[in-house]
Amino acid sequence: MRSILVLHGPNLNLLGEREPETYGRMTLTEIDAKLIELGKQLGFEVRCRQSNHEGELIDALQEARSWAVGVVFNPGGYSHTSVALRDAVAAISIPVIEVHLSNIHAREKFRRRSMIAPACVGSICGFGWTSYALGLYGLAELIP
Amino acid sequence: MRSILVLHGPNLNLLGEREPETYGRMTLTEIDAKLIELGKQLGFEVRCRQSNHEGELIDALQEARSWAVGVVFNPGGYSHTSVALRDAVAAISIPVIEVHLSNIHAREKFRRRSMIAPACVGSICGFGWTSYALGLYGLAELIP
Amino acid sequence: MRSILVLHGPNLNLLGEREPETYGRMTLTEIDAKLIELGKQLGFEVRCRQSNHEGELIDALQEARSWAVGVVFNPGGYSHTSVALRDAVAAISIPVIEVHLSNIHAREKFRRRSMIAPACVGSICGFGWTSYALGLYGLAELIP
Amino acid sequence: MRSILVLHGPNLNLLGEREPETYGRMTLTEIDAKLIELGKQLGFEVRCRQSNHEGELIDALQEARSWAVGVVFNPGGYSHTSVALRDAVAAISIPVIEVHLSNIHAREKFRRRSMIAPACVGSICGFGWTSYALGLYGLAELIP
Amino acid sequence: MRSILVLHGPNLNLLGEREPETYGRMTLTEIDAKLIELGKQLGFEVRCRQSNHEGELIDALQEARSWAVGVVFNPGGYSHTSVALRDAVAAISIPVIEVHLSNIHAREKFRRRSMIAPACVGSICGFGWTSYALGLYGLAELIP
Amino acid sequence: MRSILVLHGPNLNLLGEREPETYGRMTLTEIDAKLIELGKQLGFEVRCRQSNHEGELIDALQEARSWAVGVVFNPGGYSHTSVALRDAVAAISIPVIEVHLSNIHAREKFRRRSMIAPACVGSICGFGWTSYALGLYGLAELIP
Amino acid sequence: MRSILVLHGPNLNLLGEREPETYGRMTLTEIDAKLIELGKQLGFEVRCRQSNHEGELIDALQEARSWAVGVVFNPGGYSHTSVALRDAVAAISIPVIEVHLSNIHAREKFRRRSMIAPACVGSICGFGWTSYALGLYGLAELIP
Amino acid sequence: MRSILVLHGPNLNLLGEREPETYGRMTLTEIDAKLIELGKQLGFEVRCRQSNHEGELIDALQEARSWAVGVVFNPGGYSHTSVALRDAVAAISIPVIEVHLSNIHAREKFRRRSMIAPACVGSICGFGWTSYALGLYGLAELIP
Amino acid sequence: MRSILVLHGPNLNLLGEREPETYGRMTLTEIDAKLIELGKQLGFEVRCRQSNHEGELIDALQEARSWAVGVVFNPGGYSHTSVALRDAVAAISIPVIEVHLSNIHAREKFRRRSMIAPACVGSICGFGWTSYALGLYGLAELIP
Amino acid sequence: MRSILVLHGPNLNLLGEREPETYGRMTLTEIDAKLIELGKQLGFEVRCRQSNHEGELIDALQEARSWAVGVVFNPGGYSHTSVALRDAVAAISIPVIEVHLSNIHAREKFRRRSMIAPACVGSICGFGWTSYALGLYGLAELIP
Amino acid sequence: MRSILVLHGPNLNLLGEREPETYGRMTLTEIDAKLIELGKQLGFEVRCRQSNHEGELIDALQEARSWAVGVVFNPGGYSHTSVALRDAVAAISIPVIEVHLSNIHAREKFRRRSMIAPACVGSICGFGWTSYALGLYGLAELIP
Amino acid sequence: MRSILVLHGPNLNLLGEREPETYGRMTLTEIDAKLIELGKQLGFEVRCRQSNHEGELIDALQEARSWAVGVVFNPGGYSHTSVALRDAVAAISIPVIEVHLSNIHAREKFRRRSMIAPACVGSICGFGWTSYALGLYGLAELIP
Repeated sequence: MRSILVLHGPNLNLLGEREPETYGRMTLTEIDAKLIELGKQLGFEVRCRQSNHEGELIDALQEARSWAVGVVFNPGGYSHTSVALRDAVAAISIPVIEVHLSNIHAREKFRRRSMIAPACVGSICGFGWTSYALGLYGLAELIP
Repeated sequence: MRSILVLHGPNLNLLGEREPETYGRMTLTEIDAKLIELGKQLGFEVRCRQSNHEGELIDALQEARSWAVGVVFNPGGYSHTSVALRDAVAAISIPVIEVHLSNIHAREKFRRRSMIAPACVGSICGFGWTSYALGLYGLAELIP
Repeated sequence: MRSILVLHGPNLNLLGEREPETYGRMTLTEIDAKLIELGKQLGFEVRCRQSNHEGELIDALQEARSWAVGVVFNPGGYSHTSVALRDAVAAISIPVIEVHLSNIHAREKFRRRSMIAPACVGSICGFGWTSYALGLYGLAELIP
Repeated sequence: MRSILVLHGPNLNLLGEREPETYGRMTLTEIDAKLIELGKQLGFEVRCRQSNHEGELIDALQEARSWAVGVVFNPGGYSHTSVALRDAVAAISIPVIEVHLSNIHAREKFRRRSMIAPACVGSICGFGWTSYALGLYGLAELIP
Repeated sequence: MRSILVLHGPNLNLLGEREPETYGRMTLTEIDAKLIELGKQLGFEVRCRQSNHEGELIDALQEARSWAVGVVFNPGGYSHTSVALRDAVAAISIPVIEVHLSNIHAREKFRRRSMIAPACVGSICGFGWTSYALGLYGLAELIP
Repeated sequence: MRSILVLHGPNLNLLGEREPETYGRMTLTEIDAKLIELGKQLGFEVRCRQSNHEGELIDALQEARSWAVGVVFNPGGYSHTSVALRDAVAAISIPVIEVHLSNIHAREKFRRRSMIAPACVGSICGFGWTSYALGLYGLAELIP
Repeated sequence: MRSILVLHGPNLNLLGEREPETYGRMTLTEIDAKLIELGKQLGFEVRCRQSNHEGELIDALQEARSWAVGVVFNPGGYSHTSVALRDAVAAISIPVIEVHLSNIHAREKFRRRSMIAPACVGSICGFGWTSYALGLYGLAELIP
Repeated sequence: MRSILVLHGPNLNLLGEREPETYGRMTLTEIDAKLIELGKQLGFEVRCRQSNHEGELIDALQEARSWAVGVVFNPGGYSHTSVALRDAVAAISIPVIEVHLSNIHAREKFRRRSMIAPACVGSICGFGWTSYALGLYGLAELIP
Repeated sequence: MRSILVLHGPNLNLLGEREPETYGRMTLTEIDAKLIELGKQLGFEVRCRQSNHEGELIDALQEARSWAVGVVFNPGGYSHTSVALRDAVAAISIPVIEVHLSNIHAREKFRRRSMIAPACVGSICGFGWTSYALGLYGLAELIP
Repeated sequence: MRSILVLHGPNLNLLGEREPETYGRMTLTEIDAKLIELGKQLGFEVRCRQSNHEGELIDALQEARSWAVGVVFNPGGYSHTSVALRDAVAAISIPVIEVHLSNIHAREKFRRRSMIAPACVGSICGFGWTSYALGLYGLAELIP
Repeated sequence: MRSILVLHGPNLNLLGEREPETYGRMTLTEIDAKLIELGKQLGFEVRCRQSNHEGELIDALQEARSWAVGVVFNPGGYSHTSVALRDAVAAISIPVIEVHLSNIHAREKFRRRSMIAPACVGSICGFGWTSYALGLYGLAELIP
Repeated sequence: MRSILVLHGPNLNLLGEREPETYGRMTLTEIDAKLIELGKQLGFEVRCRQSNHEGELIDALQEARSWAVGVVFNPGGYSHTSVALRDAVAAISIPVIEVHLSNIHAREKFRRRSMIAPACVGSICGFGWTSYALGLYGLAELIP
């Protein structure tokens, strides 16, 4: 069975608690359960990982080369600044989809630019936890 | 049965012919047929419209207030400049999803900013015609 | 009797319905009626026109050369981007007054610059529908 | 009887003498007389004040809280730089209208941005002394 | 006989009347006659079209694919803002030459950048109506 | 007994009245009384002065050379624009602490830069009237 | 007894050794001892932590939710770039005070902007180790 | 006998005391005495005035219209920000020479631009008090 | 017989050898021969000169005042930086046409701005060696 | 024997695999072996370390104070954003040489600026693995 | 007898002929004669040199080290772009005064910044040929 | 025997005399001798050339095509502005290494960008004369 990495960046472990008017009330555990379930329907094993550490996110992307056919990645606050994560996405040969819970284009100016998006296949934002689900649908279309 | 407008902006009528390495080889007619089919599966009537005229796109968005429950909108080249389209999206009370065939963040600098995205619910790019399909999935989640 | 064109740009046909906390609750029909009445008091025939199409607005400005002594123009979202409308204002020899319902200087940054204002005689914003009325007063002073 | 402050900023005491091709040939005394007369017609006592001192303009705005129902303010050269005047306008609860004799949008780039306009109700420019008159008309509409 | 489209953008229908010190005193009809004549000398049928509507200009460029071997295009005020026209030029496989009557590099700063030029074969400005003629000569060299 | 100048810039005389949600409900007189009391505890005579006039603030800083060992300075709206006040701070040999009631980094972009801070020893913002108190504590540490 | 986290960012473990003309000669251990002592006087338990790892600083802020009533935070070099730390500060409900040893406004241009300050209650810089002490005083005032 | 105004801006009253390595060790009184003496040699009465108040500097420039044939003006810190002083220079018909003691082009970036220079006849900087003397020589050449 | 200077800037002596995919395969000698021939047809003596030295190009433009009725000038890499060449073009009274082999608007950003174009009559780019030929045609139209 | 730290930043562990057309086909292990060998020839013990974690790179630089006489550092993607790494380089007293495999000046705009270079002794880029070798040669010259 | 170099940059050889409304009607030969005469009065031998070549201007500055006590330099169009000339001025130990005929601050934006001024002792502009004379007076004061 | 050009740009002939704290105390003659010696060790004939003239540097690069296998080039002040030199480097097929004596990234902002680096193979700065030596080592590796 093919596997997909769902990778959550910094502060996403606080989901459901942190600014719920912006990020929704579901916890990360609840989201992960839904994504694993949806993955099964689409024929994929979904494995989820969260870290607040930029370096661990890079490590996770690099390791995914050996076991995953694609990545759904919410880089959180690192989206707007991290060249190192962008390079990691570009360095691995499997497709990466960038997702955001909120519509980053409707927020502060510095959130409107993603350093990581240019290295990804595509980008999805503004649908709350459904952004991840759409990312899985998109990956399923890309991977024959 | 609830209806959804799929609105295509300038030059998208040339799909399949225009720069296929960037925009893919499917024609707009083929994409529309697929979206109508997908809409049926999701329980929506999908109506498709294309125009090269900014004013006609505004008219279409305004008219959709009376018959549609949501819009999947590819503003094409108007994405990066049109305040008038942004105002039209903000002025109507139904949700609008912005979609792009290509990953606009990986292209020329002026394509990386969408004037229209901040007024939309969410934004999807980079999946070829599947961007539209993901937009329909996303709308289906938003509309109870 | 001398005539004045009141020209409304994109989305102004939704007035009274669209974001009333920003644009007020009067409809465009009501505003036009008030302006025609005020025009009569000032000794002018007022003719009103609205379009969502940039090209039609240019056409209307060009045609006004032959029948109007002045124009009160709310370019709406085209204010901030349209060189073509600016050129049309500069190309006709009759005075044009730019008006806006809201105080554009207190809104998003991109709304603070009008491409069209430099080609107009003057500019008025922030008074709701009264901005148009002040525009008529101003034209009445300019036209002997 | 309700009172209105007409406040003139720096160098406006030279009106009629200073660059008449830009600012017109009427003196400030003549303009003030016309505004007092117009105020009477509209049912307001108009009191006029001019100063070249930024601090005195702030003082005048603050004092107007106690006796005026509104202000028509031409901040002159301080328009483009003064945060302190903007704060004074924001700090008093009566409405302030910004006016300019010339069309500031058609002049040097640094004159196109007003620091003070965002704190005002509205802004009028380009009508010569009539800009002040339109400001009075506008205030009359705002104050019930 | 091979055909060429000469396409005129917004406000060019006013030529001879509009700001003659900048744009010259010949009317568009006179220019078109001269270009048709020159086309004959070079062995081309020249067809001329003018529109103030961005969408109609896009339509015209798209339609030219089926009957023309090249386009001489003066985008007027749309030159500086229109991504949609740029995309239309890039989408059609026939060569397009951008021309301007005035030297746009010697005018306002916003006129110095053409959004459309990068998608064209070449660009000519500053020669009055002769800019069009040079465009025809240039096309004649490009088309074997 | 050593003396300290507490210097308040423009519009701070309105404290308690002006935008209390931003600046708090204490009046300037109340704040001054608290600072004089705190000064006594720290072994300093505190003298307070407010002016809306940039020139008077410069005068006050210059005069403080002869009687004060330090200054706690809230430059208000002049913070963001005044080179002359910065030069005055740099010209006098006694330490100056910049304070702000609100967190200027969380407000409009133009408030985030202080022209005066680089010439001060340090800067404190965001604590309401306590910002002044922290400034006194800080001065007490600096002055042996 | 209520507790406060004092959090030191990258390179602050070198204090006393690193560029003493800029950062002073006290070691971090000495500063921590002084802050713990001052905390006792103010009625707080002060716990100190230092890390060079952005992710560990985010972890520490998140964990502080469960045991601290406030944070005094010197983000060091991460101040100017880290959206992830800003999000962590915004995500936790306890007040955070930003402090810097040096006057960051008097240093290189890139140090003058803090990405983190807008999410904090207030900001203090320029007092050497006393900046931390003032931060504790400020927190003591904020926490009833 | 013809008269010349030498006008000194903010903080120049501290000359000889303030940052002597930048501004020299001569006091303003000594400089004024030298300029009065030099004026006599050149056939002019020289009157000197200093103020820290922007408004008083504007007043002084306006009054000089009635008694002076030219002005040598060191606007100090107001040079870089004051549109109001620039307007005053432009409003009076006598020639104004801008002078600076230090070479403003070799200092902080914000000192490199003078808002006032474009309205002056010429500009001199970097010669210490001799800048004023060269200004008098220059005026003497300009005034027949 | 009237004469025209064709002036080639730096590195154009390498034509045919240097990056032929950008600049074409014809050598400068071949181009010059074609231009001399075309000149004859148009009734002009064409003299060609190339230099890598900015100063020699200025000298050549200045000398052309005495013998040429116009100049076709390819400033090469100096186009984007040379104020001195721009001043030379402005200083001589004969018309100068700027030409480029490649479409400079489709290349690196710094090549899109010509410092010299504003001082020329017109500008032509993108036609390979034909750019020069069009420049001669254009000059022939300008010179009666 | 004196020791040198060779420090590799994020994603360099993928060398040989990651985008070989940009970064070459040698693995990091092969490069390290060559550098250890070259170090021996130059009389230095070379120790190599790689990490994807910004914090670990800071730790490694700090620890090198106690055992190394110099550092050859390839900060990878952190080069362009990390103030914390720059501060670490500035905080340690041993010389640090920045190296890059590719010519960063010929790549994306954001890669052209290194935040870390100003704190280093020197910078070398574009020579593939030889950049490291040149860094060792350079250190050998610097260390007596 | 001490000697001074008066160095004229590009296009100044055309003085009297080139744009006399901007640069005056005196020829360079006439100006040089006046400066030589004035030099004699001040006790200096004045030698004048003009070149259109940046390299020759650098050579001339370098050679002046061996025979001149100071330089009066009008860099013309190279003022705004030449780092090489700035370095030459900084490299020689004798004082250099920058002069301009016109008021460069009142012209195009790119002329307002001089790259060379920061390396000079002082700068004078706007007095026509008298700018050179003031430069000689200024040098005479600087050189004991 | 293969030959290498070492090319020195403007003001480098003053080495040893010019600002020795920045550029070191060795003269250019001494550096050239060392490089010729090092070249011999590496199996290359090294020929050195210096010029203050941008055009001569272009000529030298072009001529090197016929006799050299590579170039070590210090463009001095032309590094930051010269498109013409960049084009020359790109136009010749032999590898060029850019070197600088000082660390240009630690100096004025305008020195941090090299226009020439993107056309070179690699870039080395900050090692004093050793920068040239490292350039020779690097060339030796590149040339088989």
